[in-house]
Amino acid sequence: MRDFSEDTSALALNTATLGHNLEGFGAGWSVERVIDACAAHGLGGIVFWRREIGTRAVEIGNRVRGAGMEVKGLCRTPYIVGSERPDTWHDQTLASIDMAAELGTDVLTIVTGGTEPGTKGVLETRKILAERLARVTDHAAASGVRLALEPLNPMFGGNRTCLMTVRDALDVCEMARSDALGIAVDVYHVWWDTTLRESCIAAGNRIIGYHLCDWLEHTSDMLLDRGMMGDGVADLRAIRGSVEAAGYKGACEVEIFSRDVWWKAEPDHVLSKIVERFKTVC
Amino acid sequence: MRDFSEDTSALALNTATLGHNLEGFGAGWSVERVIDACAAHGLGGIVFWRREIGTRAVEIGNRVRGAGMEVKGLCRTPYIVGSERPDTWHDQTLASIDMAAELGTDVLTIVTGGTEPGTKGVLETRKILAERLARVTDHAAASGVRLALEPLNPMFGGNRTCLMTVRDALDVCEMARSDALGIAVDVYHVWWDTTLRESCIAAGNRIIGYHLCDWLEHTSDMLLDRGMMGDGVADLRAIRGSVEAAGYKGACEVEIFSRDVWWKAEPDHVLSKIVERFKTVC
Repeated sequence: MRDFSEDTSALALNTATLGHNLEGFGAGWSVERVIDACAAHGLGGIVFWRREIGTRAVEIGNRVRGAGMEVKGLCRTPYIVGSERPDTWHDQTLASIDMAAELGTDVLTIVTGGTEPGTKGVLETRKILAERLARVTDHAAASGVRLALEPLNPMFGGNRTCLMTVRDALDVCEMARSDALGIAVDVYHVWWDTTLRESCIAAGNRIIGYHLCDWLEHTSDMLLDRGMMGDGVADLRAIRGSVEAAGYKGACEVEIFSRDVWWKAEPDHVLSKIVERFKTVC
Repeated sequence: MRDFSEDTSALALNTATLGHNLEGFGAGWSVERVIDACAAHGLGGIVFWRREIGTRAVEIGNRVRGAGMEVKGLCRTPYIVGSERPDTWHDQTLASIDMAAELGTDVLTIVTGGTEPGTKGVLETRKILAERLARVTDHAAASGVRLALEPLNPMFGGNRTCLMTVRDALDVCEMARSDALGIAVDVYHVWWDTTLRESCIAAGNRIIGYHLCDWLEHTSDMLLDRGMMGDGVADLRAIRGSVEAAGYKGACEVEIFSRDVWWKAEPDHVLSKIVERFKTVC
């Protein structure tokens, strides 16, 4: 396994971790201020959300690289299946791919959306998902962007996802038959899955993202009560071992949705804590 | 598959489905009134919770059989692992086995509890669980009671369960090496698992419980927003097909925790709806 005790170049911040501290959420940290803070704390990269980028993708990408870091990913396409899929999903997905390319990142995350109207379970939905993905993968490949299917914790089945495990995501990659498709492994979603290691090894170089946080023993809210690494029950070293057994050498992206704890903390304190925990428990 | 369109003898009520309508929760339906109503609606059985039974196990069991039904199970032992395991877990578990035997049922459900203090993930906890189960299985076997390990939706990992899939539960059955151990398959917890069928077939006659409800597309509460069969996205026929492929011919136990919908409805209306949906969509 890689040794992070001295080297934080693999550490990336998903900006959602600063939550309400960001511009538009109250405290008003601009994208530029986030970039400078990440560089000051020694991070190697940042992952943005589309709403933060607007029409400034090239400018923001250059700013990140100018600060000595890389853009490690972009969140995310609209839902591609399920009752909350927007009519504009296809155009929005192509535009998201273009935004990722302009930012200079090669990873665009996909949360799939839930069960298709008129169907039950997840199997029919996955077939439809694979068909729809096949309509955007050529553009992704031509743009040098890979699409990271993110399996979500099964509690998000129904309206948010049809992929609950790395194995599920790999099945859809294989159905859609494109090298532009990969998988993002998020601790919060997969920590409980004791078949994870074999699924990751089967996925091999399809693994193109690794997201860090922790699962709190007493999780009080499905969406907004994620824990800081080390504060929960996930076996973080074992999970990273599974991802690295697949050959993954990319970023470790910290993504903590925490309305009542970390979103209320001062952003520099959050970044300090992330670095400390990354070096010691991840 | 069994045909339920005319025959509701396999249908059982888990009393929690009537929730706040029960004695002690407000509306005040006694155990006797629940038994009579289930018989009037043509159900074949009832599953009780320990708190409803007290010292009246033999009396209540006889009352159920006198009404032409069977006691199909008892909920449940205290947690056996995790930080919320009571010091009295061993004595309570033996007493629960005795209560099940006195009720005249051969199934006692176990929700395991979560990750053991001082450990991470679920693997160490499962080993400890298997060791502790081995301390109660002889008493269960001698009492003619089987212990049904119920895997829970992964959202209940951390503090409520260390078993997230039927495969996980089977692994612990095999570690503990006792025929007194079995598995309860609950739609709410496993509907998303597309490896369910193969896991059930591997489990074979370890499958000793099948719980019905539905997973609502927009589930608003982890604990108390379960859906009536047919109102959600679970593929109920496919799940029952998996259970029956394992050889299961036992009760179909309706267990719906629904604070804002079904717990507010009149119990006779709930029972009518259950029978209608059982005949048509399960």
